[in-house]
Amino acid sequence: MRNFSDYLFDRIDELNNPTVMGLDPLLSYVPEPILDKWRKKSGDPKVNGASAILEFNCGLIDAVCDIVPAVKPQFAYYELYGVAGIQALKETVDYAKSKGMVVIADAKRNDIGSTAAAYADAILGSTTHLDGKKYSGIDADAVTVNAYLGIDGIEPFCKVAKERGKGLFILVRTSNPSAGDFQDLLLEDGTPLYENVARKVEEWGSELIGAHGYSSIGAVVGATWPEQAGKLRRDILRHSPILVPGYGTQGGSGAAAAVNFDRNGKGAIVNASRSLMCAYQKCPDLSQNDYAIATRNEAIRMRDDLRLAIKNKILAENV
Amino acid sequence: MRNFSDYLFDRIDELNNPTVMGLDPLLSYVPEPILDKWRKKSGDPKVNGASAILEFNCGLIDAVCDIVPAVKPQFAYYELYGVAGIQALKETVDYAKSKGMVVIADAKRNDIGSTAAAYADAILGSTTHLDGKKYSGIDADAVTVNAYLGIDGIEPFCKVAKERGKGLFILVRTSNPSAGDFQDLLLEDGTPLYENVARKVEEWGSELIGAHGYSSIGAVVGATWPEQAGKLRRDILRHSPILVPGYGTQGGSGAAAAVNFDRNGKGAIVNASRSLMCAYQKCPDLSQNDYAIATRNEAIRMRDDLRLAIKNKILAENV
Repeated sequence: MRNFSDYLFDRIDELNNPTVMGLDPLLSYVPEPILDKWRKKSGDPKVNGASAILEFNCGLIDAVCDIVPAVKPQFAYYELYGVAGIQALKETVDYAKSKGMVVIADAKRNDIGSTAAAYADAILGSTTHLDGKKYSGIDADAVTVNAYLGIDGIEPFCKVAKERGKGLFILVRTSNPSAGDFQDLLLEDGTPLYENVARKVEEWGSELIGAHGYSSIGAVVGATWPEQAGKLRRDILRHSPILVPGYGTQGGSGAAAAVNFDRNGKGAIVNASRSLMCAYQKCPDLSQNDYAIATRNEAIRMRDDLRLAIKNKILAENV
Repeated sequence: MRNFSDYLFDRIDELNNPTVMGLDPLLSYVPEPILDKWRKKSGDPKVNGASAILEFNCGLIDAVCDIVPAVKPQFAYYELYGVAGIQALKETVDYAKSKGMVVIADAKRNDIGSTAAAYADAILGSTTHLDGKKYSGIDADAVTVNAYLGIDGIEPFCKVAKERGKGLFILVRTSNPSAGDFQDLLLEDGTPLYENVARKVEEWGSELIGAHGYSSIGAVVGATWPEQAGKLRRDILRHSPILVPGYGTQGGSGAAAAVNFDRNGKGAIVNASRSLMCAYQKCPDLSQNDYAIATRNEAIRMRDDLRLAIKNKILAENV
């Protein structure tokens, strides 16, 4: 059975690029020529809208699949467009996988054991349908989860991860401004809650460590909190891959993202969504038909920014 | 604009029954006659399976809608059956509302602000589609959310709740065995994390208090933790309605659920899923065609059990 973290880090090494492209497609992000084409079609505007999103996503994937190893569809934006949106999500996942990209489902699911098992099967696994046969659901390579319910809400995801070579990223320190409302609360021993969650992530992942030295159970740590992230990487998350949101539009810099990488420049993957998807909006000289060119240029800029930041981080540590 | 908590507590008062029926439909819960009927149909087994689930749900709703005020579909079980499952979820919600039932979407969503807004619009609100018109999504009356990301992940839900007369139930103390892994961690001041979350729920809801004295922002507190629940109701959650899972199959008793009610026997709603949906499995004398009778009988038993437990709780407090 494949180990998810090996699959992920092999792809990152091949492309020498620890970037994941977030696919959070509001209709307002879709370039006008695609919207216009689908507006002119007859039929249900909800279905046509979802088709416009799918065409945009596939264009973005085509634009970067030889230089960016992974995509992260954010489920909220597909659920927003109803049943047709979920269909576009499934087809986006299938298309990205067909292009060799690792797919991280950003769903932040959480529930009690039996229900967590249903979510795990829906997103990573399979289930038995009316004809008695098992069919895969979304069949992403990994999923983000929220651990507030404790281990019995996490175990069903770990079980599917182990059985099917999938991965998890558990929310530790999120990228948003109010992350600290609960995550920073100090416990009796003086340590913040998020460090306690991080210790559990490291513990839960101990059985799924692959050849790169990393587990298939990882953590989410925002690029907007470099101080906290540096300590987590150094002291706690020694075998947990880190998914780093918050780079780009949310304000995280390359240097801030780089603290999530280990002394060999490995162990993390940095997400950008709007700054990649909507790169064309910052290129007034480009036609909107050329949105893919703008996204590719920004993906190259981000890759080079991260490479440099990681190199500088390693240099600084070895001084 | 309607206040969600007034809508909920008016319905509870009318039926004198603080029960919500969970709709967590695994195909294995669906009675054989319904499965058999849909197995014989031609076409996609995934679509037919979702139709079997929808038929079961509608039969359950018909069986209890004059005695049970609310339903709580658990999203995981619909997502498990793919796009057709989501369609069955939407039709279940619409059907329950057409029968006068309050619909609480058990989705436990959570994300950073912009994405939380997309979830809020998807489940409670509406969004603009390709034709420039706004359409509702699931359009449930309330949704469960997880507050680990802090206030800016909650605010978008509060905004939609205020604008559209909807409600939230925020996870405070969940019903599962490992709820305490993080929720019980003691903070520097000696209080557990879940009490701190409860205080925030009470604070966030202060602007949406209705005529019953309760807010449209409520809390989830499991019936499996009566000691913690009693303290929460008494000392912290004075204006927050409480959604109480864990009654029945999970082991919570009427007495344990009753501690979530106030001195007037108000302020909470108790969920049962499997014990209601699968009541027919415990009635070997009934034909599976009569599953609705078994569910109705169990709903009456549960209602009377809760009424008695709440009465006893009030009596004990007034001794």
